[in-house]
Amino acid sequence: MIKLRLLLAASLFIAPCAMAEGPIAIAVHGGAGTITPDQMTPERELAIRAALEQAVKAGHAVLDEGGSSLDAVTEAIRIMEDAPEFNAGRGAVLTEAGRVEMDAAIMDGATLEAGAVASVTGLRHPIDAARRVMTDSPHVMLMGEGAEVFARQFELEEKPTEWFITDFRRDQLRAIQAEPQASTQLSEDWYSTVGAVAIDRAGNLAAATSTGGMANKRWGRVGDSPIIGAGTYANNQTCAVSATGHGEFFIRYVVAYDICARMAYTARPLAQTSDEVVNLVLKNAGADGGVIAIDRHGRISMPFNTTGMYRAAIHRDGRLEVGIYRDDNRDDNRDEASDSEISPH
Amino acid sequence: MIKLRLLLAASLFIAPCAMAEGPIAIAVHGGAGTITPDQMTPERELAIRAALEQAVKAGHAVLDEGGSSLDAVTEAIRIMEDAPEFNAGRGAVLTEAGRVEMDAAIMDGATLEAGAVASVTGLRHPIDAARRVMTDSPHVMLMGEGAEVFARQFELEEKPTEWFITDFRRDQLRAIQAEPQASTQLSEDWYSTVGAVAIDRAGNLAAATSTGGMANKRWGRVGDSPIIGAGTYANNQTCAVSATGHGEFFIRYVVAYDICARMAYTARPLAQTSDEVVNLVLKNAGADGGVIAIDRHGRISMPFNTTGMYRAAIHRDGRLEVGIYRDDNRDDNRDEASDSEISPH
Repeated sequence: MIKLRLLLAASLFIAPCAMAEGPIAIAVHGGAGTITPDQMTPERELAIRAALEQAVKAGHAVLDEGGSSLDAVTEAIRIMEDAPEFNAGRGAVLTEAGRVEMDAAIMDGATLEAGAVASVTGLRHPIDAARRVMTDSPHVMLMGEGAEVFARQFELEEKPTEWFITDFRRDQLRAIQAEPQASTQLSEDWYSTVGAVAIDRAGNLAAATSTGGMANKRWGRVGDSPIIGAGTYANNQTCAVSATGHGEFFIRYVVAYDICARMAYTARPLAQTSDEVVNLVLKNAGADGGVIAIDRHGRISMPFNTTGMYRAAIHRDGRLEVGIYRDDNRDDNRDEASDSEISPH
Repeated sequence: MIKLRLLLAASLFIAPCAMAEGPIAIAVHGGAGTITPDQMTPERELAIRAALEQAVKAGHAVLDEGGSSLDAVTEAIRIMEDAPEFNAGRGAVLTEAGRVEMDAAIMDGATLEAGAVASVTGLRHPIDAARRVMTDSPHVMLMGEGAEVFARQFELEEKPTEWFITDFRRDQLRAIQAEPQASTQLSEDWYSTVGAVAIDRAGNLAAATSTGGMANKRWGRVGDSPIIGAGTYANNQTCAVSATGHGEFFIRYVVAYDICARMAYTARPLAQTSDEVVNLVLKNAGADGGVIAIDRHGRISMPFNTTGMYRAAIHRDGRLEVGIYRDDNRDDNRDEASDSEISPH
């Protein structure tokens, strides 16, 4: 009897190890849009590439140490929230009133549990608040002051307003508001958000997104990032998706969920369904943007219909990919690339 | 040449008339859940049935006069927002702080345009604010004070707080807060929302939903009603859906969009996909609720996995259906019904 128990214990011990042989992979994004020379300097490009690489490597390290995909995407997002280069956390865009109001969401592909916060201020890491909504409340989405009161229970790190605001964003707001009929950053053709998707050794998928929304936004506008199904979705049976783009279209086309639904109901691969939604459905609708997505085999797709998308991935074979422009997908033969949409950088 | 023009003008005039032969139909709901004897008196049941009938008839009259499905669902929702029997507008549930904070959404199946407001106060008809977001802003979703500032531009009717609050809701909040560990109305097993879906003579579908959310809610909780894809969705190619139930699950399962997506990608009828999502997917997840849905042929489905759902429809053949309990679908032989789940009313 004791032997049987030992055997049973041994087999239980072996089972997780066998599962632990699954592939790990992670992808991150930092926004998509039209990159024009006055928005991009060599210094800024280097800083962005370095921040993307740092975020994806930190998330991958979590996976490599046997951590969960939820922990990996959280870690990657926290780094991008701190990086002033991206529109999330520190460095987020400013509202019409010059404030920083942030949205974030996270979803667990194993349980379909999810958490989101909309229009929160003062929290260094909105993604941590979204995760607390998922794990420590009966709700999926909390907004505004109520979300902040909820977050305060967990002593999440707070920062004064000035900590979030960069000179770049102050200048950006000034420039937008100087334009006649300026209402939002729409005219800028750049939609910025940070996101991460990952698969861990146990085969669990996770997705997370964080953003400051649209520059010069008003009226308490909520974009797609904190909307489960629109900007963020994860389901172990299909895929995990984080989107970035013209949020209103991403809501109306339920983009993140639609990519998963097409896989589930038409038995086609992620590469095909994500490309279809981004380069056919959204493009036909006149909607700019892109997604990062990962399937249950750890295959990553990062389609975008804009000139560029800030992105990085560590594939299941360990290969690191960091890209901004369209031809960055072919890092090895970049000099030979001749995509007419490529910006001359 | 003049004759040709006249002919052309005549044929242009005939075309819309030919289109005007399409079927019209409309359905409304007023919430779903477990109906227990202490929650339902004969007087209350009569009042609810009368309000449902009034709403669905008013919406149908709009369609009958050649009006759009958007106008029809708006009209039906406005009547239910005013009716104190339902959790929307006047008679909405109270938050933990004793306030009325309302959410609403509307979607146009012809254009996939949509509008939503979350957590607005003081507006007699939140659905009108949602519609203004759709038609008069570049956004889909506005929340809180910002949404109210936006709405005020259009001089939407405002009412003082006391106008919204009924004795029923005051007593309800007191009862919930008297319970140990009371946090939301979850324990009550009743999820209340109002919704409408319709098809007009031109074949255009529309969906709309309005709610006060969960009784005793806090932290700025946002449910599924104002989330496009979760509680509300419409697409002329497939169907229009308005949901009512345990909102967190409806968000995580992207319920309204999923019913449409299953039609689009598996070529199965609405009756099947809506039943599958409500009675398999949601039921397996432990999620209570139901939906009203209509397809592009004007066929209505109203599945729910709870004891009852307040609902009414005027089918494309003109038949009026008003129901609360499960066996109400068989109005003609109601005495013979013997569904074990039926409450003894």
